[in-house]
Formats: sequence, C-alpha cells, structure tokens
Amino acid sequence: MLNPKSSTLAEQLIRGTYVQQGLDAIRSRETLVTTLLAQRCLPDEGWDDASVELLLQTLSAMDSNNFRGSTGAGEREARVFSPLVARRHFRLAHGVGRSGDVAAVQPKAAGSSLMVQLANALAKDVLRLAGMRAVQAALVLPVATGMSLMLVLLQLKELKPDARYVIWPRIDQKSCFKSILAAGLTPLVLVNVLVEEEDGHPGGYLKTDLTGMAELIDQYGSDSILAVMSTTSCFAPRAYDSVQEIAKLCKDRDVAHVINNAYGVQASKCVHEVELAMRIGRVDAVVQSLDKNFMVPVGGAIVCSASREVIDRVAKFYPGRASATPTLDFFITMLQMGKSGYRRLLKERKHLAAYMREKLEALAAEEGERVLRVSSNEISFALTLGTLCSEVMDEKEKSQQLTFLGAMLFSRGVSGARVVSCLDHKTIAGHEFNSFGAHHDGFPVAYVTFACALGMQRDEVDLLVTKVRKTIQEWRAKQSKASSIAILRESQPQQGPTHESNE
Amino acid sequence: MLNPKSSTLAEQLIRGTYVQQGLDAIRSRETLVTTLLAQRCLPDEGWDDASVELLLQTLSAMDSNNFRGSTGAGEREARVFSPLVARRHFRLAHGVGRSGDVAAVQPKAAGSSLMVQLANALAKDVLRLAGMRAVQAALVLPVATGMSLMLVLLQLKELKPDARYVIWPRIDQKSCFKSILAAGLTPLVLVNVLVEEEDGHPGGYLKTDLTGMAELIDQYGSDSILAVMSTTSCFAPRAYDSVQEIAKLCKDRDVAHVINNAYGVQASKCVHEVELAMRIGRVDAVVQSLDKNFMVPVGGAIVCSASREVIDRVAKFYPGRASATPTLDFFITMLQMGKSGYRRLLKERKHLAAYMREKLEALAAEEGERVLRVSSNEISFALTLGTLCSEVMDEKEKSQQLTFLGAMLFSRGVSGARVVSCLDHKTIAGHEFNSFGAHHDGFPVAYVTFACALGMQRDEVDLLVTKVRKTIQEWRAKQSKASSIAILRESQPQQGPTHESNE
Amino acid sequence: MLNPKSSTLAEQLIRGTYVQQGLDAIRSRETLVTTLLAQRCLPDEGWDDASVELLLQTLSAMDSNNFRGSTGAGEREARVFSPLVARRHFRLAHGVGRSGDVAAVQPKAAGSSLMVQLANALAKDVLRLAGMRAVQAALVLPVATGMSLMLVLLQLKELKPDARYVIWPRIDQKSCFKSILAAGLTPLVLVNVLVEEEDGHPGGYLKTDLTGMAELIDQYGSDSILAVMSTTSCFAPRAYDSVQEIAKLCKDRDVAHVINNAYGVQASKCVHEVELAMRIGRVDAVVQSLDKNFMVPVGGAIVCSASREVIDRVAKFYPGRASATPTLDFFITMLQMGKSGYRRLLKERKHLAAYMREKLEALAAEEGERVLRVSSNEISFALTLGTLCSEVMDEKEKSQQLTFLGAMLFSRGVSGARVVSCLDHKTIAGHEFNSFGAHHDGFPVAYVTFACALGMQRDEVDLLVTKVRKTIQEWRAKQSKASSIAILRESQPQQGPTHESNE
Amino acid sequence: MLNPKSSTLAEQLIRGTYVQQGLDAIRSRETLVTTLLAQRCLPDEGWDDASVELLLQTLSAMDSNNFRGSTGAGEREARVFSPLVARRHFRLAHGVGRSGDVAAVQPKAAGSSLMVQLANALAKDVLRLAGMRAVQAALVLPVATGMSLMLVLLQLKELKPDARYVIWPRIDQKSCFKSILAAGLTPLVLVNVLVEEEDGHPGGYLKTDLTGMAELIDQYGSDSILAVMSTTSCFAPRAYDSVQEIAKLCKDRDVAHVINNAYGVQASKCVHEVELAMRIGRVDAVVQSLDKNFMVPVGGAIVCSASREVIDRVAKFYPGRASATPTLDFFITMLQMGKSGYRRLLKERKHLAAYMREKLEALAAEEGERVLRVSSNEISFALTLGTLCSEVMDEKEKSQQLTFLGAMLFSRGVSGARVVSCLDHKTIAGHEFNSFGAHHDGFPVAYVTFACALGMQRDEVDLLVTKVRKTIQEWRAKQSKASSIAILRESQPQQGPTHESNE
Repeated sequence: MLNPKSSTLAEQLIRGTYVQQGLDAIRSRETLVTTLLAQRCLPDEGWDDASVELLLQTLSAMDSNNFRGSTGAGEREARVFSPLVARRHFRLAHGVGRSGDVAAVQPKAAGSSLMVQLANALAKDVLRLAGMRAVQAALVLPVATGMSLMLVLLQLKELKPDARYVIWPRIDQKSCFKSILAAGLTPLVLVNVLVEEEDGHPGGYLKTDLTGMAELIDQYGSDSILAVMSTTSCFAPRAYDSVQEIAKLCKDRDVAHVINNAYGVQASKCVHEVELAMRIGRVDAVVQSLDKNFMVPVGGAIVCSASREVIDRVAKFYPGRASATPTLDFFITMLQMGKSGYRRLLKERKHLAAYMREKLEALAAEEGERVLRVSSNEISFALTLGTLCSEVMDEKEKSQQLTFLGAMLFSRGVSGARVVSCLDHKTIAGHEFNSFGAHHDGFPVAYVTFACALGMQRDEVDLLVTKVRKTIQEWRAKQSKASSIAILRESQPQQGPTHESNE
Repeated sequence: MLNPKSSTLAEQLIRGTYVQQGLDAIRSRETLVTTLLAQRCLPDEGWDDASVELLLQTLSAMDSNNFRGSTGAGEREARVFSPLVARRHFRLAHGVGRSGDVAAVQPKAAGSSLMVQLANALAKDVLRLAGMRAVQAALVLPVATGMSLMLVLLQLKELKPDARYVIWPRIDQKSCFKSILAAGLTPLVLVNVLVEEEDGHPGGYLKTDLTGMAELIDQYGSDSILAVMSTTSCFAPRAYDSVQEIAKLCKDRDVAHVINNAYGVQASKCVHEVELAMRIGRVDAVVQSLDKNFMVPVGGAIVCSASREVIDRVAKFYPGRASATPTLDFFITMLQMGKSGYRRLLKERKHLAAYMREKLEALAAEEGERVLRVSSNEISFALTLGTLCSEVMDEKEKSQQLTFLGAMLFSRGVSGARVVSCLDHKTIAGHEFNSFGAHHDGFPVAYVTFACALGMQRDEVDLLVTKVRKTIQEWRAKQSKASSIAILRESQPQQGPTHESNE
Repeated sequence: MLNPKSSTLAEQLIRGTYVQQGLDAIRSRETLVTTLLAQRCLPDEGWDDASVELLLQTLSAMDSNNFRGSTGAGEREARVFSPLVARRHFRLAHGVGRSGDVAAVQPKAAGSSLMVQLANALAKDVLRLAGMRAVQAALVLPVATGMSLMLVLLQLKELKPDARYVIWPRIDQKSCFKSILAAGLTPLVLVNVLVEEEDGHPGGYLKTDLTGMAELIDQYGSDSILAVMSTTSCFAPRAYDSVQEIAKLCKDRDVAHVINNAYGVQASKCVHEVELAMRIGRVDAVVQSLDKNFMVPVGGAIVCSASREVIDRVAKFYPGRASATPTLDFFITMLQMGKSGYRRLLKERKHLAAYMREKLEALAAEEGERVLRVSSNEISFALTLGTLCSEVMDEKEKSQQLTFLGAMLFSRGVSGARVVSCLDHKTIAGHEFNSFGAHHDGFPVAYVTFACALGMQRDEVDLLVTKVRKTIQEWRAKQSKASSIAILRESQPQQGPTHESNE
Repeated sequence: MLNPKSSTLAEQLIRGTYVQQGLDAIRSRETLVTTLLAQRCLPDEGWDDASVELLLQTLSAMDSNNFRGSTGAGEREARVFSPLVARRHFRLAHGVGRSGDVAAVQPKAAGSSLMVQLANALAKDVLRLAGMRAVQAALVLPVATGMSLMLVLLQLKELKPDARYVIWPRIDQKSCFKSILAAGLTPLVLVNVLVEEEDGHPGGYLKTDLTGMAELIDQYGSDSILAVMSTTSCFAPRAYDSVQEIAKLCKDRDVAHVINNAYGVQASKCVHEVELAMRIGRVDAVVQSLDKNFMVPVGGAIVCSASREVIDRVAKFYPGRASATPTLDFFITMLQMGKSGYRRLLKERKHLAAYMREKLEALAAEEGERVLRVSSNEISFALTLGTLCSEVMDEKEKSQQLTFLGAMLFSRGVSGARVVSCLDHKTIAGHEFNSFGAHHDGFPVAYVTFACALGMQRDEVDLLVTKVRKTIQEWRAKQSKASSIAILRESQPQQGPTHESNE
C-alpha cells in the first residue's frame, strides 16, 4: 500500500530512517511472495498469519468484484450480500475454474486464478516432499475423495466408452464403492486374502488377491474393464493393496489403475508403495483427501499422476466452476506449514503411531486380547475383542453388545473408534456384503480399530487408551449383569455412531 | 454461556436488574433461533452479524472436533492446522454429509448437521418465497450448477440405465453441455427457432422448437432418451425455453425433464414459468445456482423438485462427504437477508432491469441500433451492433473488430458484457457449433449483451451505459482510422475475456 | 505484496493482461494512501473495509514487533500473548507516544507512529470541516473528556502555578466538575440565570451569568484564577454557555478559557459559537469527546486550539505512553466515513432533531405539557412533567414517582432519557448542589430530557416517542391507583439508571 | 443460543443423542464461566479462543447498544459507525466506568460492567499468584504506568493538600519523573549510591541511599512531603530500590509510599521485595504495567494495594469514563493464559535470563569486558563498553561513537538495547541530569543494556548475542579506520533510537 510517492510523503511525518526500516520490513514480506512465485513450492519455514493475510488481501484486490469504479454487466459478478460471508472468503468470490476447465484462469479474477495456479503447484510439491517423487502433475479438486474418484472414472470412460467394469479389491468403505456406481459403472468385487496370525490366534490380516485379479481380467476381458481401483490407506486388519503388483498387472493387460490413497500421504510406507507403483507399472491417477492428509476442513482432494496429460484431462473434464474454499484452505495451510512444519508433523505422527501401538498392546495383554499384526498398516490398529464376547452369546446378542460398546466409547468422548462385530450384513445398490466393516466375509474375530492420524497429540493417545480401558471394564461389568433388555434400551438411541462410515 | 448459576453469581458483581436486563437481551436472541428451528423458514427480518455469529459458534461447539476433553481415534477428526483456516470456518470442519448421503446427519458433527438440515429447509422456503410454490423439497448441493446437472443426470440414469440421449435445446454455454458429456451421455442438440423482429430489422429472438423436440423423441424413441434438459435463464436474444410445453411433452412421452434454471430465481416471469411447468407437466428436478440467485461466492447450487423422493435420491446418490462452505454461505446469507431483504432485492432488480433497458434503448437510438425484443427475458439485454461494423469488412476483419470491442469494454472496467459476432465456430467434444455464443447458426446480426443481475445498483447501470457509450465512440473512431494491424496487436493479448463463458 | 519481480513471475502463471489489470486495481488503492499522506485530510468518499485493512496491515508490518528476523532486548517489545488480542489490534501493540510526548514518533513503531500523525491531522481536518475553521492544531488524546479536561488544567497550571481557582458555570454533569478537583484545583461554581418561558408557563431555560462571572474574577483576582471552564453541549433546559462573551472577558482579564465542547461538534450552532469565541476572544483549548461526535467506542477526546503551541504543550505534558485504541478507532472511522459521510451524518442529525422536537411537541400537547424552548440547544430536548405529578403529592412521593418513571422508561428499552425531579440534593467533594440534574437550584418544573445524537435513526425516534407515550400512560394509570407501597417495591431495584450521569 | 425449546426442536432435525452430546459440550463451556464467576481467579488451564469469543459475545449482547428493539435517547449511546471498529471491540462500545468511578457498573452496559469487575478480580489474583500475597485489592487502570502514577499522586494529594514534595531515588526514565511534575508536585531527586565492583574493575551497581532519604525527610519535614516514589524494575546497573527499608522509613515518618513496579511482576525476587515491603512497612500503592508484565498491547496498568480502601479511592477519583480496551485485553489474556500458562511463562523467563547472562558473559570475556553484577536485577543486564572506546578519544567523539553503536544495533534488528555513554546531559523541566541514562552522575564506564523480558524466546537470545557480537566487531573495525566524518554522516539520521526512553 505504500508506493514510492507515499513513502516520500511519509518521511514528512516521521523520520526517514524509520520509514526506511519499515519499508525494509515490508520488503522482506514481499520477498516471501517472490520466492513463492519463483519456486512454486512450500516455503522452508511456514509463514505467519500477517504475511498470509497480506497476500490474500492483495490477491483479492486483483479480482474484478473488488475493483473500485468498475461495473458488472454479467449474470455472475461475485456480488456478496453478507459481510460475514465476504470476510470469510477474504472477498474472493469468483470460485475456481471456468466452464471448460476447473484449473483455468478466470479473466475476471486474476487474484483467485493466481492462487489456484499456486495451490496446484504446492500440491505437486508437497506430494513430492512426502516421497511421491514420481508425481509430475497434481490438481486440487474442490470435491472430496469420493467425488474425485467418480470424476476420474468418468474421465477414463470418455476414452474407453464401452468398458463398464471396475475391479475393486474389497474395502468396506462406502464412498469409494459408491463412486463406481455413481459413475454408472459396475464394480467387480475382489475378495481379499486372509492371512492368519502365525501362532494360530484368531485374527490375521487381509491382502490383495493378485491371482484372483488376473483371473477377473481374463474372465471379463481387458476391453470390458475400465479400471482397477485399489486402496492403500485403510482400516486394519486390511493391509494396503499391493499396488506395485497391481500396477504391473494393469500395465500388462492394458487396464487403467486408479489408487484411492485417501489418507496415505501421511504414512511413509504407503507413500513408498505408491511411488514404486507409479515408477514400475501403470497408475493413471492417485486420489488423496485434503482434510485427512493436510489438516484442512473436509471438502477437497488432490488428484496426481506421473503424467501431466492425465491431470489436464481431469481438469478439463470438470463441468463448470467450483468453490474456491478447499483450494484456498489448502493454499493457506501449505504456506503456514512450510516444509519444516510438514516434515515435523510426519515425523511426530510416525513416532506417535508406534507409541499408540505399544500402549494398545499393553492394554491387549491385560485383557487377553491382541493388536493384530498388519505389517503394512502404519495408521490403523485393530484390537481384538475375542475374549470379551462370552462364548455363550448368540449372534444377535453379541452384535448388540458390540454395538453398545461402540456407543459407550462415543458417548465417553472417544470419536472415530470402529467396533467391527463381523456380524453386520449390508446391501449397497444390490451388492451384498457379509461381515460388513471387516473387508472380508469370514473374518474370524471381532475387533475395534483406532487410527493415529496426522495432527494427533501424545496426550490424546494417553487419554484414548485410558478411556478405552475404562470403557471396556465398565462394559464387562455390565455384561456380567447381563440385563440384555436394559442394554437394548440404552444402546438403541446411540447406535448410529458405530455405523459411522469413514469418508 | 450464562447458565442460571452463572447469572446468580453475576448478581454478586453487578446489580440484579442489570443482569436481568442483559439476560432478557440474550433471550431475545435465543428466540430468533427457536423461531428458526420451529418454522424452518427465512426470518421476516434479517439477523444482525452478532446473532449469526453467536448461532454459528454455538453450533460449532456441538461438533466433536471442538469438544473439550475428548480424543479422536478416527482417520478424520477435523483437526485444522491453520488458525486462519479454522477461523474462516467458524471451526466447523467436518464438512457435510456422510458416505451414503450428502444430506445425512454426521454423528461427530451435530452442529454442522443441524446447520445443513436448516439450510435445506431455507432453500425450500426461499424458492417458494420467490414464487415456486410447487417445490416440495430442496437440497443445497456443495457443487455448482454444471456438476449439479451432471449429478442429476447420473442419478436419473441409475433408474433408466439403457437410455443414453439427452435432448438439449441449444444454449451456448459450455458447462451445461459438458455436464451431459461428463455423465457419459450423448446430447441431441435441438436447434432453436428464430423469430424475426416484426418490422424487418435485423435481429429477432430465439425460442424452443417444440415440434422438433417431439420429432426427436419419436425418432430416437422414449426408451433411449434419458431426459430433456431445458434452460430458462439465458442471454438474450435467447428466450427462456417453453418449459410448460416441454413439461407436458415429457409427461406424455414418459421422458425425464431437468430444468437448468441457473439464475432464474431472481426473475419473476421465469419463476412463474417454472412453477407452471412443475404443476402442469413433468419436471424431475430444477437446478439453480447459489451465487447468482443468492449473492454468495461461487460454489453451490440448489436442486429442487415437486417430489421429495427425487431430492432424497439425489442426496443419497452423492459419493462421500463435501465442503460445508456453499451450504454455510447460503445459510448465513438467508439469515441475514430475511424475507424482507430478499423481497426488496427482487423488487429492486425488477425496477432496475426496466431502467437498464430504457437507458440502453436510448443509446441504441443514438447509434442507429436497437435493443432486441425478447419478451420473456427479464435479465439479459442484447444491443445490436449492426451498423457498427462497416459493410465492406470481410468476416475475419469484422470478427477481429468485435473481439477488440469486447477487450476494450473489459479493460475499461465493464465486466460481464459479451460481444457476440455470430462468426465464431466452436467444437466441443466433437460437436460443431456455428455462430457460437448466439445460440443459433444463422443469427442475423452481431450484438453485445448486458445483464441486470440481483444486487446491481442504479449507479452501476449509469456507469455502465456511460462507459459503453464512450467505448463505442472510441471504437468507431479507431475503426475509421482502420489500422487493422495495430488493432490486431492490441486485441490479441486481451481477447480472452470476450470468450468468457458464463457458468 | 507484489513487487515488480513478483508481477513478472505471476505472468508466467496467468496472462499478462490479467496481471496488469490486477496491478492497476492495487495501484488505485495505493493512490488512496498517497492522497491521504499528501492532503492529510478526510477522503472525499469513505474507504471500503478492504482498503482500510490493507493500510493497517501495511502499517503493522512496519512496527518492530512484527519484523521478521529481529530480536527484542528491551523491557517492552510489544509481545502479545493472545492471538485474539493481537488480531483486534491489527498487531499494532506499541501504543502511542513516548515518555516525553503522547504525539511523539516511536522509533520501534514506524507504522503506529505514522497512524498517529495522520490521526491528528484528520482530527484537525474534521473539526474544520464541521465549521471550526479557526482550529490550527488538534490532538487525539487517548483518554476521555473528563481526563482530557484535567490534563489541560494541569498543563495550564504549570504555567501559572499559583492560580488555584477555576470558574465553572454550573452544569450538572460530574466528570467535568471532578476534572477540576482531580487537578487539585478549587471550582468556583457560577449560578446560571433562569430565563422564564415568555407566556408564564412553568419552565424556562438557563444561560450564563456573564455579570456574575466578571464579578467573580474581580472578587478573587485574575492572578488567582487559573481558568474559566465553560460548557457548550449540555442537556436542556441549559443553553450553551455564552462562549463568545466569556472568551472576550477572559481575554480582557487575562484568564485562561477552556471550553468543554463534549458533544458539540455535531451541532452547527454550537460549532459556530465556538468558532466565533476562538476568533474574537481567548480560548486556550476546546475539548470534545471522540465517541459522542464521531461514533467510536468510548475512550478518547480531541483537544484543539487556534494555537499550535498550546496543543504541543499538552502533548508534551502527557507522562508516558498510552493505548493506541482511541486513536486507531478514530483513524479508521474517519477513513471510512469520508467527508461526504460526515456531512451526511451532520445533515441527517439536524433534520432528525427537528423531527424529534416536532414529535415531542405533539406528545406534550396531548399531555398538557410542553417542550421547553432552549434556543441554542439543538441536541437535547426537555419535556416538562408538570401536570403529571399530582399537586397533592409531597416531595418524597413525587421524587419516588419520578424515579419510578425513569426506571420504567429504562426497562422498556428507552436508554439515555433523564428524568429530572428538581428534588435531588447531591454533595460532591464537599460542594452542595440542590436540584441536582437541573443545573439550577430553583428550576420550577420537573422534566425529562431526550437527545438526538449523531447516528440516531428516524425509526428510533418514532420508537422513542411511541414508547414514551405508552410509558407515561401506564405510569399515570398506576399513579391513579396510587399504591405507593407497591410502587416503592417495584422502583427500588431499578432506580439506578435514573441517576445515570452522562460522561 | 440454544434454549430448552430450541433443543427439543433440534431433535426433530437430528437424532436426540447427538443434540444431547452437543448440549453437553456447550454446557462444559458454560461451566468455565460459572467457575470464573464463582472463583474470580485465573482458570487453571487457559481457555481456547472459542470459549473466550463465546463469552465476549454473550457479554456484548448484554450491553444496551446491542439490544434489539430498543431506542437510545442519550447523548452517548455507543453507536459505532465502522463495522471494522465495532468488530474489533466485540461490539462492546460503552467503555469502562461512570463519571464518578472508573470501576463502577454502567447501567447501560451490564456485559461490559461484568467484564470490568472480573478483570479487576483477575488482576488481584494474578498478582497474588506471582507472589504478592499481601495484595488485598487491585484495579486495572485504562492508562499506562506514567499516568497511573500521576493519578495515584493526585489522589494522595487530595488527602494531604499542603504537601508538595515527592522524594524520588533517581531512575533515568522520563515518564515516572514527569508523572510527578504533571501532578503539579516537586520532585526531590535522591542520588543513588554507587557500589563498585569488588575487584576494582570499572563498573559497579547503584543502590538506594537510605540515609539520604531519611535526611531529606527531616530536611523538608514530613508534612511537606507527599510521598516517596520508589522503583523496583529498572535497567542495570541500577538495582531495585530497597523498598522494604523505604517502607519502614515511610511508616515511621508518616509519609506515603508509592512503588513504581513497572515490569517487576515477572521477576520473583522483585515480587518478593514488594511483598515484604507491603507486609512490613508502608506501601500505599504499587503500580505495574499491563503490557510489560502480561503481554498485552501498551495502554494499561494495575494499581494494587494491601488496602482495599486505597484502591477504591483511586477508582473513585478518576474523572469520567475510559476506554475498555486495556481492561479487555488483560481480561482475554488472563483467560487464555490461565494459571499454568502464567507460571510457565514466569519459569521460562527465569531460566532464559540466566541463559542470557551466561551468553553475554561469554561475549564479554571475548571482548575484555564484563557483565556488571547487579545482584537484585534479574531482568536487565549491562555489558560494559570500557575497552571498546579507545582512550585517546575525546568526550565528543566517544559520545558519537557510542551513539553510532546504538544506531548500528537498531538497524541490524536489535531493538531495545540501550547504549549508555555516561556523557549525556539532560534537562527535564528545569531539573539537570548528568550522565543521563546511567541513573548516576559519575558512573565510571559506558555500557549497553539488554533485558530478558517475559515472552522472549531462547532463539531470540541466541540471535541477540550473535547480532551483538557481529555488530561490535564491525564497529571496532570501523573505529580503527576512524573516519569520524563518515561516521557522523551515517549516525545522524539514526541517532533517534538510542535516546529511546523506556516507558
């Protein structure tokens, strides 16, 4: 706001050296922006609020709805009624994209457009920083993971209009399954392979049935199969899909491959798998959630690829404009996090996950249970509930008891824990799933999962384990009283949360 | 924040009557909320900032990410890194919807969920307030018009999977056309009927070819046709589609009917047409833009219907969660606008549109041009540019000159004006369009359009007409100098905005 | 934030013409600042929020506590603990002034210092705009009117250390009286002259006893008298003091003259009187409230003078630093109001005051009362309550009834009305006042005052008169029931507000 | 905002258990307020932003300017023009106090008044928490330390109107000296005692001349002496005044005693001295800065006393209303800091001060200088500059060189360092000070001071020492070139900051 003429005038009011020192300080902030524009990557150290706000307000002044003395004769001029709403958007109101391309520059909104271009560059940078060095292009989509997967599938279909099947190694999470259906495609559900615990304990983990996948492709024919949708980040005891092998298979058989890497950026092994898959085989696109990996509110995703062309096609496929909010949240967050901040968060999460496992194993030992060994899953841990359900219970009662445990955890302030009874049956658009939640029809033991996600704090883990211990003890105590009628009454109004799906 | 115990304690610090008077004031704000929850419609008078903020902060406190003393063990716990980001979302970070349903309640986010339910109720109410009394259900979608149309089509396709055509009376606006393609469907472009000016002047307006539509249905067969996508709000000289007649036809032939009512809620005649169409014939869904009709930032749309079932199906079709921002912006704006505010805006726009036409007609008369008579279009006005292009010009030169006029208007601070040369050819995904922008291959005269949209101010109209007059005069002066090389040079870098599409 | 290098880099991301247009828009905001610094007066038109915020954030970046990479080794480095607090101050935390001078530049705070210099210039400008053309210097003091008066008196005393009296034409408002006492000086209370209503009705108005003043000066001797403290803005039926005559007298007798012009800037006649006094006679300083004249929160005042020297002395007299808030609020408000905004407010208030008088006179006529004619008072109106207290009441009962009327008005949402019974006795620091509130021991009739202050709205006046009418009717009804015991009970807990003093 | 009726209605929109869980969360925030009102002390743990904002908005709703449907007929109705200004004050616009008392409740502003009462209670609590257990009452004054001292003196004078002297052990800090002058009183400057370094090195520290003080009292007579104004927190090499001994002397001789404890709350030894003085002898009032001790912006102070009566008198002495900002900033900060936060800050500062001394001593050793031993000063450290000025320099040149060193430090981003040449002469209101800045006419060596104040960070200390080392080396290098003309030229425009006074 202080042009050279203003600076000279300011020196009539306060001593020149003070003005100059102030201008130096302003310039040091301007340099942050120059570096950002030149390097198009996360700053080494995160920016402070003041720098971010100054940049956003400067960009905002470049959008036509904020011009002084102009007139808007279009049907969309980004006029905002509520000052509260204008303020929360920093007066950036034109959204992102144009009718032809969600990554396109808007003539009316130079500031917003600059922000979008930078955000996409930062998306590429942060993925590479996390270890996905093969990424050549990334796009922040203003829709969440499920919709992003649907858009990618629809775009792939444009190129192969007669293929109608998507091979989907089972993952009991609704929105990715629905993304296939919503795209008008037919999922071919691939059953996971159960690898039992080495010592014969009930449990085990689930891995991709690569043989089955090859057979499915042969059975339907490559021409009929649009894509394989594999999943990395997932709840234990499901392991990450073997994306390297899948990528090789897809390359061989000329089938597209989309990886649902929902919250996998935060986990180094997961990132490594995806990286290798991209390098070795075929990976058309990888989709990851903004909120889960980058600590922003729900609403966006990043689609990335080793091929710029794929990303451009996805961008150009998007019909119309979209909210700038997911992009803006991500942009702000990357500036404030900086490389060092993101690295620190990744490191802290890794240590904390080990800590959580350790604490849960101690608890499991106390209760005669175990934390299942799922080698590749660094985020989610499954604590078995085998001895906790008395053997004499029938299925219905067992299911009620486990539902009730979930409700107890939720009402005691533990959110996000999933009790999986292996007794739920679910039908989604005509597709039947036994043991829904367990990713496998015959998973041998009930369990409860806990995730150690980015941003969690050590005292949260402590609190979690304390609460879980206490809840299990109370639950056992109630069970021994076994007034199942009373239990039914208490559990019913609260059963909702235990069915919580997770996208 | 002041429970009864606190109130009693407060009376030890300040006189009881003052505490009581303060509590009365708090209660009067609480009553606003009670009325909102009881009536689920816009308040009669808009709320002030303080009331809105208090409500949002209260709702925010009800979301699990803001609980004190709880622990999050899910993979998505709405942790927000940047305080700037948290603040702009009022700490509502869980987004909207669940994996199964974008209108569903989130157990972890009672506050956000309440907001969403209310927003959908307000959407229904405001549409009815505007005159669409037939609306029985409405849903705020967190994607803009184009994506919303695509979702509606995809949902319809689920019910009629073998139908692959969508009849589309031509409207030269990319995102609705792309919404058909993106859904994997094939558009059947229906040519508009040109009705010439009564006195033989070059010009006229464009209306729906109802006979042609019936013939198309017969030709392809009802079973093959998924839907007719009609358009109401549009740029002059295209008139609103004859949605009543289309609705009757669709009812007769058992074909779905989706109305793209992008910015039509603000225009009473348009609303009236849609209302009658819903009452008389078949209208599966009507889609309207949030930003254009309700003065919020770009990013959302309302889908409404005379049938609650349709809306429920669309909601349940959405794969995964979504950004809460479009819903929240709409929610805040409806509370702050109130019924009286929205009515006042509608009335002012109506008067101002008449005023704009009047002023443009005066300008047209000065220039030997006219403002085309498009009876049903109350928002957009087309000023012919017939005499302004000298007859001796060839097509290429004429096109350049008109492109240049558009660039001049833009750089002089007139945004949203569209110069249509009737000479542009465009191919979208293999579909050819002559005279792109004019909605008709053979529209007889070049023109420029201006819209009088909700929220425009009288002084903006004055400024607009002054600027247009001045620009045309300068442009004429340059033309007479006819240095086409210089023109080319100036126009090139700025030609972008004249191609601006408008969704 | 976009230096030339950044702009060039931005052109690699978005088209150069868009960057340029954005930069033009930024420049147009920078020009606002240049004009402000060059002219140092209110902008013609008020600034929008975005421009103000950009300026404040720029200034903030110039303060050392916001420097990046610096280190603070003083005992005061403006570190702010709470982000909420930092944000509300735009991170300007150094306050105003230095130990020697409240108007001095702070080396550590170039931005804050610039703001202070500009605010003082704007203070001078706005006073001159309001009509005080004689003002040569003005200073925004970060303390309210009472403290400002005290500081002016203490400063005058420095020059005339042996003078200990201040002549004070009675005005029943505590803080100006206390400002004399707090300065360690002795007030000489000058009784006002009561000018009765021309037609003999009980009432009249109060004016300055100029003869009495001259006599007082003679009696104590000019050397003993430090100053006359006159008052302009005041509650009817007190008229503005005859400041012209007083100024002449003070000039003659070599006595300082301080005008308490608390809320007089908003009233044109009042401003004119002060202007003439400054031109014709002696006026050392005029003190006006920031909140009452310029619609900012309570906390500051402007001291102005026809002599720059006086203002400099006051500034240099202030011991230590002070809060920047009153100055900043004033600064922001002047930028957002602009000349046109302030003129419009002044005009509206003038019209509204006439309207309020008219409405009150109609009410008075209905009730057999009158609005007292106080020629020079354009802000405050006194409605007599003569017939409203039955003649048979004794003083105590009458006093209770009137107290009760005040409490009724307050609890019915009328704030700021003052019921003056002419029966209150008050002792302030040993000085006795009969008929406190009435500015005169023997004012002949009870009354209630209403002010039409800057920023009041027409519908507020309507609501006021409606509420007053209804309250008086209810009060009369209760009186006729005359259950004085019940009244007492009801009035007691609410009596506070009627004693409300008004600075 | 959710009353019971609203809660019931909400259950029609979302499941009852979710509403209940949300209400539980709201209640847990309400409980914070109840605890605050009940205990009137800092919360154990700091509040989050959301809780503070909810409380402030609730309080704000209780102020009459925010009532819905009321009408303001006073001359001051807290109408705020600028939304930016309203927002930064949370719409609390009535300020604090009434005409009679700065701590009084305002009938029109119940919310603001509650906040003020609580803030004063928190002030008392935090002082006691810091170790001043003798404090029985505290008052947040909306003026900074200098003005607060002046008000205390003026108030004392009211009780002893004929006493005109204030004994002031010399402290070279202007605002406290000016506070005496501004009150119209005459300072009696008491020369400090220089205690030399034990090993004969040039340096030493300065302590109170208790014998001299007793003699002064005898000389002028107790009746003539209003007060002793002692100082605790101060720049090294001045030690804290011997407030215990002074308190005893004042008790004996019946002279008031005011302690200027500007930034002493943060230092445990200082607090302990003050505590003992209050217990053992006479301490009428202790004044401490808000910004320096509690990390808020400049603008307020706390006056405290072992006697509630003294504090009440000071409150009632304040003429008129005042800005609520210093009080509000303090209130917010105390809520967000909590007891644990303040304790942690105090502890960190203590450790960091030791660390700073250590680092400075290392630097001193390198340079052949030393950090002076000032036993009681835990905040400020003086590094001698003895060898750094070559012996052959004359006084003028030496003064220039040292000024230049100060300017170099400032322009290299070291703020708050004070270079004291012991060569400055200053006259304040006729009082002559030799060696100004050094608190003593004949201090034997030049030095530079650095403070380790509350909120400083370890990396700031590291940066400081690095910068100081580098600056001294550059300065030495320049000196050896000895181009005094060039130096003069460079130093002049920047000399301001070195004279920076520190209140």
